[in-house]
Amino acid sequence: MQIFDSFNPPARLLMGPGPSNAAPSVLSALANPLLGHLDPAFIQMMEEIKSMLRSVFQTKNQMTFPVSGTGSAGMEFCFVNLIEPGDEVIVCINGVFGMRMADLAERCGANVIKVEAPWGEIIRPEQVKEAVTGRSPKLVALVHAETSTGALTPVESISEIAHGAGALMLLDTVTSLGGCKVDIDGWNIDAVYSGTQKCLSCPPGLAPVSLSPRALETAQNRKTRVQSWYLDVNMLSGYWGSERVYHHTAPISMNYALHEALRLILEEGLETRWERHQQTHLRLVEGLKTLGLGIASQQGHQLWQLNAVTVPEGTDEAGVRKRLLEEYQIEVGAGLGPMKGKIWRVGLMGESSQAKYVDHFLEAMTAILKGS
Amino acid sequence: MQIFDSFNPPARLLMGPGPSNAAPSVLSALANPLLGHLDPAFIQMMEEIKSMLRSVFQTKNQMTFPVSGTGSAGMEFCFVNLIEPGDEVIVCINGVFGMRMADLAERCGANVIKVEAPWGEIIRPEQVKEAVTGRSPKLVALVHAETSTGALTPVESISEIAHGAGALMLLDTVTSLGGCKVDIDGWNIDAVYSGTQKCLSCPPGLAPVSLSPRALETAQNRKTRVQSWYLDVNMLSGYWGSERVYHHTAPISMNYALHEALRLILEEGLETRWERHQQTHLRLVEGLKTLGLGIASQQGHQLWQLNAVTVPEGTDEAGVRKRLLEEYQIEVGAGLGPMKGKIWRVGLMGESSQAKYVDHFLEAMTAILKGS
Repeated sequence: MQIFDSFNPPARLLMGPGPSNAAPSVLSALANPLLGHLDPAFIQMMEEIKSMLRSVFQTKNQMTFPVSGTGSAGMEFCFVNLIEPGDEVIVCINGVFGMRMADLAERCGANVIKVEAPWGEIIRPEQVKEAVTGRSPKLVALVHAETSTGALTPVESISEIAHGAGALMLLDTVTSLGGCKVDIDGWNIDAVYSGTQKCLSCPPGLAPVSLSPRALETAQNRKTRVQSWYLDVNMLSGYWGSERVYHHTAPISMNYALHEALRLILEEGLETRWERHQQTHLRLVEGLKTLGLGIASQQGHQLWQLNAVTVPEGTDEAGVRKRLLEEYQIEVGAGLGPMKGKIWRVGLMGESSQAKYVDHFLEAMTAILKGS
Repeated sequence: MQIFDSFNPPARLLMGPGPSNAAPSVLSALANPLLGHLDPAFIQMMEEIKSMLRSVFQTKNQMTFPVSGTGSAGMEFCFVNLIEPGDEVIVCINGVFGMRMADLAERCGANVIKVEAPWGEIIRPEQVKEAVTGRSPKLVALVHAETSTGALTPVESISEIAHGAGALMLLDTVTSLGGCKVDIDGWNIDAVYSGTQKCLSCPPGLAPVSLSPRALETAQNRKTRVQSWYLDVNMLSGYWGSERVYHHTAPISMNYALHEALRLILEEGLETRWERHQQTHLRLVEGLKTLGLGIASQQGHQLWQLNAVTVPEGTDEAGVRKRLLEEYQIEVGAGLGPMKGKIWRVGLMGESSQAKYVDHFLEAMTAILKGS
């Protein structure tokens, strides 16, 4: 039996696909003394979280709250509540996270129709139009910002097509929320999930979600029981709604952190925050040019918060990442799937999205690529 | 759009069914700077968590790690990985958490056979013996310490009966782990889950689990896919095992806290810690006697860490809890189901299990019950 020393993590600049760095006040909120999950003071704070989440999602949906798991649990929450065996589901796939949705929809017993675009490109509305034609899909699922490729797919037309076909529209905003425009009610989205550790700049561990009244009704009127007990909205609504019926013990400290992170976002202002993300992205792109580097994802649809930086021919992709981490304490991400070895994924999310960090990263890259 | 003030929780003495109070060093570990979930320093810490969890569970099981959700997610992890539609599952029910297991097993498509005992009493081995007779159950599921009633069911004989019938043995140790003897290998348990916020005295948000080699093999050789993507051990083992394949983003800060909480447990020593829980329980029972109060659960099988204190005839159960919270900053729990209004649930878990807190609680109860 071995007892280890207390763990003292090194200080890193997190410029990968998430987690991003958290603001000092978010980290100190985590260390606040614990409350019970039914304490009136905690319940009051839950109401404030719901209210602020609605502002950040730009929605009036009552059923807006953080699921007690990471972003992937938010994805699972949406699918298990809305899908029943045999349902027709259209899943748009242009990267890892679209594939993941298709995998999950199949586990829910859905008949999955895949709409695919090459990795790095966006999903085109015509593709979805073609897929719904002659079908009665229950749901169309789309990843807004593909973290694996850095592509940002416009949502509005696809949502219109989905609703025109009578389907619910589901959106993954894990990487987009808090970093660029997300307008749940304006875009008529029925189910949305996100994660705390990207542009909300809160540690990973919660998954903000929101269901439209129509989506909630779909979950309430199912013929079969929700296959997950932990994620069943029909029970979760008893705890996060007005009844306050015990379901599971909410992650108290993580909710403290989310409360503070949402506060900081609204204090900064949504549009100011999006513009900050755009500016640091443009600064990065300019700097990369002088290094002869570009962005691999589709022109005109490149994410500000996650940059797929091309690895020059003959460069040791993993070696550069290792040196960034060990010599400069900077974390960037590797490419996934077909993009493995071909891109570095440079995140400029939330707290990490600052001009000084872009400059520091560019200096480090210059030293590594030109100096070695 | 409303922006709220930063949240400053009041300081509470948490003597309910969990969360318990966390040690100061556990809370400050939460505030440590974030690392990426694939950072070598984080991965090293994950290995230390796995090692210390094995010590606390008293197991050599390789597949021992914290699920990224609360205790109920740990329950769901065990069931969804081991159960396939049509499997015969024996679920022992003597309180809320046994009922919950039966509900979940049904959602996995199991043919559930219920073995029931009155709330507050234990499950007797003869009952399980009778249930397995003439059947081929895949799994027998038991709650070790029923948080809803304060009863501690002995595990060994039931585990023997389960294995004699060819079944896997599954144990809920949410409230027992860290507060009284839990011996996973000694008792031959195949699947076990717990929560961080009870006797481990770490904030809620992670669910330590462990699978025996036989249970893991069962999950690996399924005919159908695991119905949960988030909790599929066949993918989780890629991240928590030696390959370190990205699955989901681990809750970094919560893992810091768990690392520190496990360290404190092993520093104190398992047996010393169990004895501390026993002593504070006995101190409480003695003090309650002078107030004319007793413990409602079965004599000889009363939990040390969760005490079902009888509410005297004519006393306003909820009113007493309200005064404890508002005037003394002490949280205790209400009874659930058939025990609602009949008991207070007084938790003496982890950090909250100290003689001085027992005395403070007894003083407060004396003032409220005798003074009013």
